[in-house]
Amino acid sequence: MSAQSSKPSPEHFFRSVNAFHLTHALKGAIDLDVFTAIGEGATTAKALAESRRGSERGMRILCDYLVVTGFLTKVNDKYGLTPDSAMFLDRRLPTYVGDSAEFLLSPTFAQAFSDVAAVVRKGGTVIDEHGTMSPDNPVWVRFARAMQSIAFGMARTLTELIKLDPNKKTKALDIAASHGLYGLAFAQQYPNLEIVAVDWANVLEVGRENARKFGVSDRWRALPGSAFDVDFGDGYDLVLIPNFFHHFDPPTNEKLMRKFHAALNVNGRAVTAEFIPNEGRTEPPQAATFALTMLATTASGDAYTFAEYEKMFANAGFSRSEFIQPQMGIEQVIISYK
Amino acid sequence: MSAQSSKPSPEHFFRSVNAFHLTHALKGAIDLDVFTAIGEGATTAKALAESRRGSERGMRILCDYLVVTGFLTKVNDKYGLTPDSAMFLDRRLPTYVGDSAEFLLSPTFAQAFSDVAAVVRKGGTVIDEHGTMSPDNPVWVRFARAMQSIAFGMARTLTELIKLDPNKKTKALDIAASHGLYGLAFAQQYPNLEIVAVDWANVLEVGRENARKFGVSDRWRALPGSAFDVDFGDGYDLVLIPNFFHHFDPPTNEKLMRKFHAALNVNGRAVTAEFIPNEGRTEPPQAATFALTMLATTASGDAYTFAEYEKMFANAGFSRSEFIQPQMGIEQVIISYK
Repeated sequence: MSAQSSKPSPEHFFRSVNAFHLTHALKGAIDLDVFTAIGEGATTAKALAESRRGSERGMRILCDYLVVTGFLTKVNDKYGLTPDSAMFLDRRLPTYVGDSAEFLLSPTFAQAFSDVAAVVRKGGTVIDEHGTMSPDNPVWVRFARAMQSIAFGMARTLTELIKLDPNKKTKALDIAASHGLYGLAFAQQYPNLEIVAVDWANVLEVGRENARKFGVSDRWRALPGSAFDVDFGDGYDLVLIPNFFHHFDPPTNEKLMRKFHAALNVNGRAVTAEFIPNEGRTEPPQAATFALTMLATTASGDAYTFAEYEKMFANAGFSRSEFIQPQMGIEQVIISYK
Repeated sequence: MSAQSSKPSPEHFFRSVNAFHLTHALKGAIDLDVFTAIGEGATTAKALAESRRGSERGMRILCDYLVVTGFLTKVNDKYGLTPDSAMFLDRRLPTYVGDSAEFLLSPTFAQAFSDVAAVVRKGGTVIDEHGTMSPDNPVWVRFARAMQSIAFGMARTLTELIKLDPNKKTKALDIAASHGLYGLAFAQQYPNLEIVAVDWANVLEVGRENARKFGVSDRWRALPGSAFDVDFGDGYDLVLIPNFFHHFDPPTNEKLMRKFHAALNVNGRAVTAEFIPNEGRTEPPQAATFALTMLATTASGDAYTFAEYEKMFANAGFSRSEFIQPQMGIEQVIISYK
């Protein structure tokens, strides 16, 4: 993301200060469904204006902007989709991720980032005491609906990394299950696996819909409430903890991991999917920049390093933890053994 | 700005949707004056927190983010300035450009970009009838104060490109003079040059201050009002038109250029400094992306190509126009001969 040229220049600064233009241009293109329209064959500004009820001048300027920023191609006056845009921004495909803008650009996030100086002074979110971690915060229903298509890829990756015995009756706990896709990906693979999904009651309705779609409703059980308060029961072979620990401080995570430890069978595993930067906290970019999102939206969350997680999980009683960088996706995985 | 990898990936989309984080992180760093603090020797999160009354945790997360995004370096736990940041973001230097964030992130611009789909549908700004072009809009006072340090470099570039006879009494018209630096750079070089500066009365106060600082008050005259309405008089050797035409449609620009043509001496020149993209409108990036800013903030402005300007200026009576891409700066220049 650096852009240092040989001679000092303020260009990188100006492009970066104006980076919010890019956010809003993309949001506008998604709202107008420009990428799908191009996929359908409306490849000139004129055709796009007709197809999506816009002005030709507006479409030309927006599409040129999307060419410069790497989302479209342009040959003469014809726009085309880049390979990434064709796969992820054409609404007709199941790989479409455009809905995520609804969550990522929700008013809560806009407010959280509106005064980063205040956030840095305080050392945590200035939204309110709990930030996005307040009980039943509706932002997580939006998240569940918006992030499904992305989560699906990561969920599939997890089923490749973690194997269960298909012939044995097994049980998995899906923490902050949201859309439920992590647990459901496993349920699809293992017909003897039962899933217990924990999240706020309003959010679990999205998971319930998906369990029905996946045809596994009879093996998917909702356990509504806070993961810190509800009784999980025991006898679990797997605890899935996707994108949850980053919201809290280490003592809170240790306490929670101790609760998972108690709920697991003797050969059980806890699986953490997270943004985990390297020790220097500056690589990989997605994991490293994610810390700022946690600073701005939570009271004490962070993007923890593997060494930090390893310590938390050892303190919680796990015998060892293994770091995995999957080939696909932007997240990292830790498998912890009881 | 593209980031296509060999395998389709939604990474570029996610980074781009979240680009507003970068805007706000930079704004936060400028508000906290982090770059100057590092220049002064506060190079760890702890030292920065003490120097700028922030939390250590907040400073660490913000600075790591600025490392990933190319504004800082990090070796062990010590942060350093990149060459660009050292020259342009350390408030102690005259090359500091951080104040421009005040203008670029003003509420007017935030509002203008808040619904790009609506802007594209309409084909122009949704702020109000005139956008930022309403009479005496206070955003231009902010602009004048915030953009001085950048304009200074471009003004110097113009004095290298355009020569006057130092021994003759000469006269220049400085259109939308703002901070006045374009005209003032010429006034400094030519002791027999008189400057007539046109802008809104509130804005010209900034120019007047600068004329005093440059020690040329006796040769700098304010002509308050709209360039479309005020009487310029005649006998000009030079008309400077920096960053003005992009706000209007071609017929309006032609009309104005005709007025300049009439005010110029027979050997006079009109000098346009602008964001001028190539014919395909996708290069260079700064000029090409600028069109979206005009779409969002004005009723009918644009980033015109040289061919478009050439036609407007020929229609206005100029005999020929010459395109120049200066080595320094992000703008392009056109010199038009009467």
